[in-house]
Amino acid sequence: MAATILDGRALAKTIGEELAVEVAEFKKKHGFAPTTAVVRAGEDPASVSYAKMIESSFKKAGLGFTLHVLPGEASQDEITELVMRLSADPDVHGIIIQEPLPKGVDEGVVKAALSPNKDVDGVHPINAGRLAQVAPAGRPPGVSDYFVPATPLGGLEILKRYGVEIAGKRAVVVGRSNIVGKPMALLLLRDNATVTICHSLTPDLGAICREADIICAAVGRARLITADMVKPGAVVIDFGFNRLGDEWMGDVDFEGVKEVAGAITPVPGGTGSMTNVMLMRNTIEAAKKRL
Amino acid sequence: MAATILDGRALAKTIGEELAVEVAEFKKKHGFAPTTAVVRAGEDPASVSYAKMIESSFKKAGLGFTLHVLPGEASQDEITELVMRLSADPDVHGIIIQEPLPKGVDEGVVKAALSPNKDVDGVHPINAGRLAQVAPAGRPPGVSDYFVPATPLGGLEILKRYGVEIAGKRAVVVGRSNIVGKPMALLLLRDNATVTICHSLTPDLGAICREADIICAAVGRARLITADMVKPGAVVIDFGFNRLGDEWMGDVDFEGVKEVAGAITPVPGGTGSMTNVMLMRNTIEAAKKRL
Repeated sequence: MAATILDGRALAKTIGEELAVEVAEFKKKHGFAPTTAVVRAGEDPASVSYAKMIESSFKKAGLGFTLHVLPGEASQDEITELVMRLSADPDVHGIIIQEPLPKGVDEGVVKAALSPNKDVDGVHPINAGRLAQVAPAGRPPGVSDYFVPATPLGGLEILKRYGVEIAGKRAVVVGRSNIVGKPMALLLLRDNATVTICHSLTPDLGAICREADIICAAVGRARLITADMVKPGAVVIDFGFNRLGDEWMGDVDFEGVKEVAGAITPVPGGTGSMTNVMLMRNTIEAAKKRL
Repeated sequence: MAATILDGRALAKTIGEELAVEVAEFKKKHGFAPTTAVVRAGEDPASVSYAKMIESSFKKAGLGFTLHVLPGEASQDEITELVMRLSADPDVHGIIIQEPLPKGVDEGVVKAALSPNKDVDGVHPINAGRLAQVAPAGRPPGVSDYFVPATPLGGLEILKRYGVEIAGKRAVVVGRSNIVGKPMALLLLRDNATVTICHSLTPDLGAICREADIICAAVGRARLITADMVKPGAVVIDFGFNRLGDEWMGDVDFEGVKEVAGAITPVPGGTGSMTNVMLMRNTIEAAKKRL
């Protein structure tokens, strides 16, 4: 039996409409729109098109959006100063720092200049720490509010909206980046899954994946996860977005795996579509901190 | 064949002597002793004896130690003010906040008052976040210096000093506390193990433990890990310290497991002995930040 397709694109549309209603009410009540500023140095094509996509979806939902582009050779001080200025600006509620930063710029220093309360993509170490320290679902959180990176948050939202049970399940996260793999593992742990984190030095990845009820692939290698690595009925969340020739594809061999899995996100149209709406949701949360 | 006993007590003695030499040199060169302040509210017996143990080992190594005891009914503001005052005091390099805090005191608020640079037990969310965001061993760290909770740091040190290979191995951490389980999992991941985090909602814990080359038990349940749950030759690190009748014992059934495991920490005399020396090491690191 072919897997249920976890349609991130359709879900993002639904959530986008829900958020647009929330934004309209927010503006009516408070007289301003939740607004995110995007910071970029240079014109990396992927970053340019990503910023355009954010802009278009933010505007569609009635959210504010500003773009701040420095030259590709901007210094660490220039970037840090911009981030500090936006952090202090009461009309800016969210800040996204696009990568890549210019060569020689210390990412850690730039991120430290970001107000944690405006960190709508959850990159500041204090937000990562609050996610790491949060108590499991069903118990008092143990930490203040925090922001989670939008991409894993979108993956989790797909699981929840499709009613996938997480508590007590075995989850395997392939990849350990700070922006997807590790926060996804911590989110699944928060929701009471038993979580295994795999990476490039994991021997026999297939055997470990086959134990999983939920597989999250976030490693950036086209079609790494094949049908023989998936337990029949498992739920597969694909965070990969790899170019192979003229085609974009995930970390999962979709055609093969969909015949084995119980449910699977397509690429494109899966997790990628959700990132934007999670940024929107985080921007609304950030604006509420200003009230 | 019986397991190698990973003698934390002997190792702690060795490291304590190494650190005493380092402290003597530090004092000679800089004219002051690295000093940690312990903050406590009330007279919880376990906390009192733990503080005494820290004091005695710190003094033995030539480190400075101060104790700050508030009444058991101290308010959140009183505790927070004390922590802020110590955070601002240039003669205090490390701060340990003992638990339990009085009822109704928000632990998160108290910890937020702690200077991350003096957080020698790694409880501040920014230190937890830096550990969560750190790059794997062998790559540039990606974050500033940070402090790791002393107990898991001690467990890692046992593995390293006994030459246990971590990279490419499967590690299972049983327990997900902020002070042991989660940081231990992140340390093992940093050192390139494939890490699984188990907890009270994990079904078939035995089957998962049997896959592990390294088992870390940090759950606070006497003799939870039995011989049938351990793969022959596995390395077992026991962070448990449970009272059963008149006896103290770990989370691992030592007598049974030592016949199967390749190496095992005893309780007492294993990880517990290491916590103190790791606090000492972190205190020296903290004092270096003041130079």
